[in-house]
Amino acid sequence: MNALVYHGPGRRSWEQKPAPTLQQPTDAIIQITRTTICGTDLHILKGDVPEVPAGLTLGHEGVGVVTAAGSGVARFKVGDRVLISCITSCGKCDACKRGMYSHCADGGWVLGHLIDGTQAEYVRIPHADTSLHPIPAGTDDEEPLVMLSDILPTGFECGVLNGEVKPGDTVAIVGAGPIGLSALLTAQFYSPATIIMIDPDPNRLEVAATFGANHGFTPGEAAARIRALTGGRGVDVAIEAVGIPATFELCTDLVAAGGHIANIGVHGRSATLHLEKLWAHNVTIRTRLVDTVTTPMLLKTVGSGKLRPRQLITHRFPLHDIMHAYDVFANAAREKALKVILTNP
Amino acid sequence: MNALVYHGPGRRSWEQKPAPTLQQPTDAIIQITRTTICGTDLHILKGDVPEVPAGLTLGHEGVGVVTAAGSGVARFKVGDRVLISCITSCGKCDACKRGMYSHCADGGWVLGHLIDGTQAEYVRIPHADTSLHPIPAGTDDEEPLVMLSDILPTGFECGVLNGEVKPGDTVAIVGAGPIGLSALLTAQFYSPATIIMIDPDPNRLEVAATFGANHGFTPGEAAARIRALTGGRGVDVAIEAVGIPATFELCTDLVAAGGHIANIGVHGRSATLHLEKLWAHNVTIRTRLVDTVTTPMLLKTVGSGKLRPRQLITHRFPLHDIMHAYDVFANAAREKALKVILTNP
Amino acid sequence: MNALVYHGPGRRSWEQKPAPTLQQPTDAIIQITRTTICGTDLHILKGDVPEVPAGLTLGHEGVGVVTAAGSGVARFKVGDRVLISCITSCGKCDACKRGMYSHCADGGWVLGHLIDGTQAEYVRIPHADTSLHPIPAGTDDEEPLVMLSDILPTGFECGVLNGEVKPGDTVAIVGAGPIGLSALLTAQFYSPATIIMIDPDPNRLEVAATFGANHGFTPGEAAARIRALTGGRGVDVAIEAVGIPATFELCTDLVAAGGHIANIGVHGRSATLHLEKLWAHNVTIRTRLVDTVTTPMLLKTVGSGKLRPRQLITHRFPLHDIMHAYDVFANAAREKALKVILTNP
Amino acid sequence: MNALVYHGPGRRSWEQKPAPTLQQPTDAIIQITRTTICGTDLHILKGDVPEVPAGLTLGHEGVGVVTAAGSGVARFKVGDRVLISCITSCGKCDACKRGMYSHCADGGWVLGHLIDGTQAEYVRIPHADTSLHPIPAGTDDEEPLVMLSDILPTGFECGVLNGEVKPGDTVAIVGAGPIGLSALLTAQFYSPATIIMIDPDPNRLEVAATFGANHGFTPGEAAARIRALTGGRGVDVAIEAVGIPATFELCTDLVAAGGHIANIGVHGRSATLHLEKLWAHNVTIRTRLVDTVTTPMLLKTVGSGKLRPRQLITHRFPLHDIMHAYDVFANAAREKALKVILTNP
Repeated sequence: MNALVYHGPGRRSWEQKPAPTLQQPTDAIIQITRTTICGTDLHILKGDVPEVPAGLTLGHEGVGVVTAAGSGVARFKVGDRVLISCITSCGKCDACKRGMYSHCADGGWVLGHLIDGTQAEYVRIPHADTSLHPIPAGTDDEEPLVMLSDILPTGFECGVLNGEVKPGDTVAIVGAGPIGLSALLTAQFYSPATIIMIDPDPNRLEVAATFGANHGFTPGEAAARIRALTGGRGVDVAIEAVGIPATFELCTDLVAAGGHIANIGVHGRSATLHLEKLWAHNVTIRTRLVDTVTTPMLLKTVGSGKLRPRQLITHRFPLHDIMHAYDVFANAAREKALKVILTNP
Repeated sequence: MNALVYHGPGRRSWEQKPAPTLQQPTDAIIQITRTTICGTDLHILKGDVPEVPAGLTLGHEGVGVVTAAGSGVARFKVGDRVLISCITSCGKCDACKRGMYSHCADGGWVLGHLIDGTQAEYVRIPHADTSLHPIPAGTDDEEPLVMLSDILPTGFECGVLNGEVKPGDTVAIVGAGPIGLSALLTAQFYSPATIIMIDPDPNRLEVAATFGANHGFTPGEAAARIRALTGGRGVDVAIEAVGIPATFELCTDLVAAGGHIANIGVHGRSATLHLEKLWAHNVTIRTRLVDTVTTPMLLKTVGSGKLRPRQLITHRFPLHDIMHAYDVFANAAREKALKVILTNP
Repeated sequence: MNALVYHGPGRRSWEQKPAPTLQQPTDAIIQITRTTICGTDLHILKGDVPEVPAGLTLGHEGVGVVTAAGSGVARFKVGDRVLISCITSCGKCDACKRGMYSHCADGGWVLGHLIDGTQAEYVRIPHADTSLHPIPAGTDDEEPLVMLSDILPTGFECGVLNGEVKPGDTVAIVGAGPIGLSALLTAQFYSPATIIMIDPDPNRLEVAATFGANHGFTPGEAAARIRALTGGRGVDVAIEAVGIPATFELCTDLVAAGGHIANIGVHGRSATLHLEKLWAHNVTIRTRLVDTVTTPMLLKTVGSGKLRPRQLITHRFPLHDIMHAYDVFANAAREKALKVILTNP
Repeated sequence: MNALVYHGPGRRSWEQKPAPTLQQPTDAIIQITRTTICGTDLHILKGDVPEVPAGLTLGHEGVGVVTAAGSGVARFKVGDRVLISCITSCGKCDACKRGMYSHCADGGWVLGHLIDGTQAEYVRIPHADTSLHPIPAGTDDEEPLVMLSDILPTGFECGVLNGEVKPGDTVAIVGAGPIGLSALLTAQFYSPATIIMIDPDPNRLEVAATFGANHGFTPGEAAARIRALTGGRGVDVAIEAVGIPATFELCTDLVAAGGHIANIGVHGRSATLHLEKLWAHNVTIRTRLVDTVTTPMLLKTVGSGKLRPRQLITHRFPLHDIMHAYDVFANAAREKALKVILTNP
């Protein structure tokens, strides 16, 4: 089969490699019909995730069809259409029992990270029963469901649930890339009164407005504008969706007393926490690697039309054209790209 | 009357000043029968709380008897024995309606901070109906209840509730001073399996052991010892009860994935937040200025013997001897002092 | 002034009586500009609420203007436009501190029940600071806010919050009168996947469809239709909005294992609880008299356009025509009436 | 091997039958070292649980040693000492993912109910990885852990967690049999101020006093005594631990406004729910079949000495003497029996 293979920082190729086979009774093999590229894949290619070995197939998102299932797989059989979760969970360890699949003792984020991933014609999924989701009956187009492999549960769990968004709230989301937009879409499940997007890119702020944001500010103006909007009080919820110290610190600056800060961004450096202000400010700060525990809930919101994942898709390519797709996605601002879809066959 | 008056950094005196009078219909005047000294009073005397004006009576803890009540006071009458809350709350503003009395629009921490406090023969309490608590009928000794003015609700709300201590948990408390010990006492309401106290002072660790701590470690050894105790996992709850960057950062180092960090300490400087580790660690960090919303609950636990506040009292003085009491409390380590009680008359 | 006065079962009149005056320092007098009639007023007229004394002015909903305020009123002054809460709360008692204003030791539901109510040109509001809400600045039409005096917080608190509606849920609401429709409108704050209205009146089911219901069933067909819709599982949330044994029992029949039943209806008789089925069904049943603690939140959702209370208003009359308005409202089905608005002057 | 076999209402025998063998890759075979008898076993013998087939081995509690494990069992190997959960869970279905193991699509309560149980020398446990718990290292006596198979998680989950017991609460537990006593022991995890046991048997009330109850009342006197104790308010939490209409209705009579009713009892008949009082009383009623999700937490509380399950054990027999043990347990009142332990070999 063909796969997108990582060969060390800056090097990737679409090349032939052996198709995966069952290794454990709990494995399944999935023929990929749709996949996508994540910002994390770009980080890997920059060398920011050194534990990724050369020779690995990248990708942790996808939908497809079961082509083989181990003897211990009970919920899926050959021919079933499935959604692949970016997080693999055994369903048995302490972390899984607590719903913290991201810290599964025999899983977590492994696809396209420690084992071959989904940017390929076939992928092996360990612990298939607890790491795959059936495509709901009656789904006539599975393409948008790829957005439920990672980006939508990430925005929802790490941003919206961790931020405890509630009706009537004022919410600020720092970063209007695909992750910030996912938080924007799913925050609306809870009917906040006002959602403010903060990003330096005017195009992204425009997109955010069409996705339901009430205001769009640049980082430079955000603090003053939000003070004015909230009578000096600040926001109920501040969601960090970038991953650098400045944006995290902006969140701690924007949040009202009694408010919540939810971190989604992948950080490479420490930030400064202004405890000399915050100690008396009754704030909650939460971090989380997505657990994908809410994927079944999100599938229901898609089914009911409350969530339209297709909004996030801007570009489509055949899977064998993935090298080109990477180029487009790597220039997301210039290409006005959010998520790109790769189709196979 | 006499009062302990602040005269700028390093200067205090026990001196005559006019007794307080009712200023608002919602005020009450309380004759103090018991009060105490807080670490915060020492901070004020060091000049760390510059908004405190010279000439102010210090103190925000006490029990006493109502000697006058405004026309708008409905719950208390002259002669009633009362517990004074360190936090004044109007009961009407948005913050109060949310139970966040510390951020009351017309109150919060004002006693001995912005208005004359409790280290005096008489004190004026604004919003008396919502800032005082009746001494429960049948209480034969009100002295220990002074511990419910500030220190016990602080340890409980900022440490234990914010840390979400639950049965079976492993809890680390950094700092075994009166505040850390208050967290230790009230954490036991929830039956954690293991409580670890961390402090450089062996005497304090010994006291902690008698208060129910399972282990006592110095800050230097804590990380390694806790890794060994928890199989490398870390603690479910880490409570900061000192107020300096190093102890906060130790908490973030000790906490397990999925765990909680609760800050009690009053911080004067920012800390470093290691988001490069924590972003994927599913942690919750909470700060809080005590709200004293749990005082009625704590009174019930005292009444039932589940909480014995007397444990925190090590020294007693007549109120007119408060200058000496300050000297003793300022040398808490040498004097093996926890809380000192001042009695009037 | 003129008022709608109750003179015992079946007897009401629009008649002159003395205008109310301040009795306590915490009282305010409100000139009514808008009020409405509640199903509860009809119950009183039927004699179902025997504690209502003859001679009382009815009504517990309204907006108006402050014309007098006692010396203890801090948040409102003469000329302020206000929303009247159907629940009076002192803000000081144990119940109020817990947010359970309905059980206030010196309040609760008293307006038009134990003291003169709002169907009059003027009304006295006790504990004004904690029983009135300011009309938000920028509100150009206060009329729809009358729906926030009672019916919308009732549907929201007793139905939606008590039912714990969450994204993706299947929700059944039994009763499509004004209260059931209020639950329908506010349930949508949480983006359930499917809302099913159950009512024998086809007109009401049609209205419900325009308000966002996905299905409308008669009580007779509901159980079978819902079994079919949910694969035999039942609904996540069943909301009772009628107040008779049969509708409550239908809710217990419809609910899935692990689901929630929220009772809004005012019941005059006991119901049968099928514990022989329910004991092992992991269900939660909640009752509540509205507390109106969520009124500030609801005002924000109105301000942001997430909630449009005007949808509930079908008829308008001048206040002096209230005798006629009662006739219309008492024939709600024939008149296709939901809520009627009375305007003064 | 030998087993205690049900032969229809009133008929049981200790007899030879084939030892169980692995049927699925996820099965394990356990040699029983300790088991016990449950009140439910007596119900089965009375014919109250008609789905139990003649020929079935009874029992759903036990500890033992793994003697065989299927190829799909990852967490246990031959020789491991294990605690058997009374609830079998697949860990994969919707119910299991929500922590509602009792409603597992391929499990739930099946042991000694639909498949052969634990009152035998060997038992087959389906879904072993998610239905067994390792005996913690360092446990020198596994006997008391049998109490964690069913009775302690039942009292804790269905009674204490469902009742939301919190520090300072007043709690009434109706029924002082083993289940009520389990609720009594585990309620103390949360430091309620007052626990009241209600039972007609003075011996059981005496036992309850030694287990930590503050008061013991007969059902006849309970309502009046509790009104007196609580100033007419009622209890914060009422726990039903009998399973008949009268005791459930007593709970609804005892509960304060805003309080919680938790049903543990297995009910064979419907009860009367006095909605004419309760509709405005802001109460929560919860039912639950034990899920055993808290067993890992309970194991930690046993390890730390916060819970001493041995308190529940009154009699011990060799397993081959189980016919006699049943006679004793069936006359619990006369024999002053709580739980009986059966030891093998």
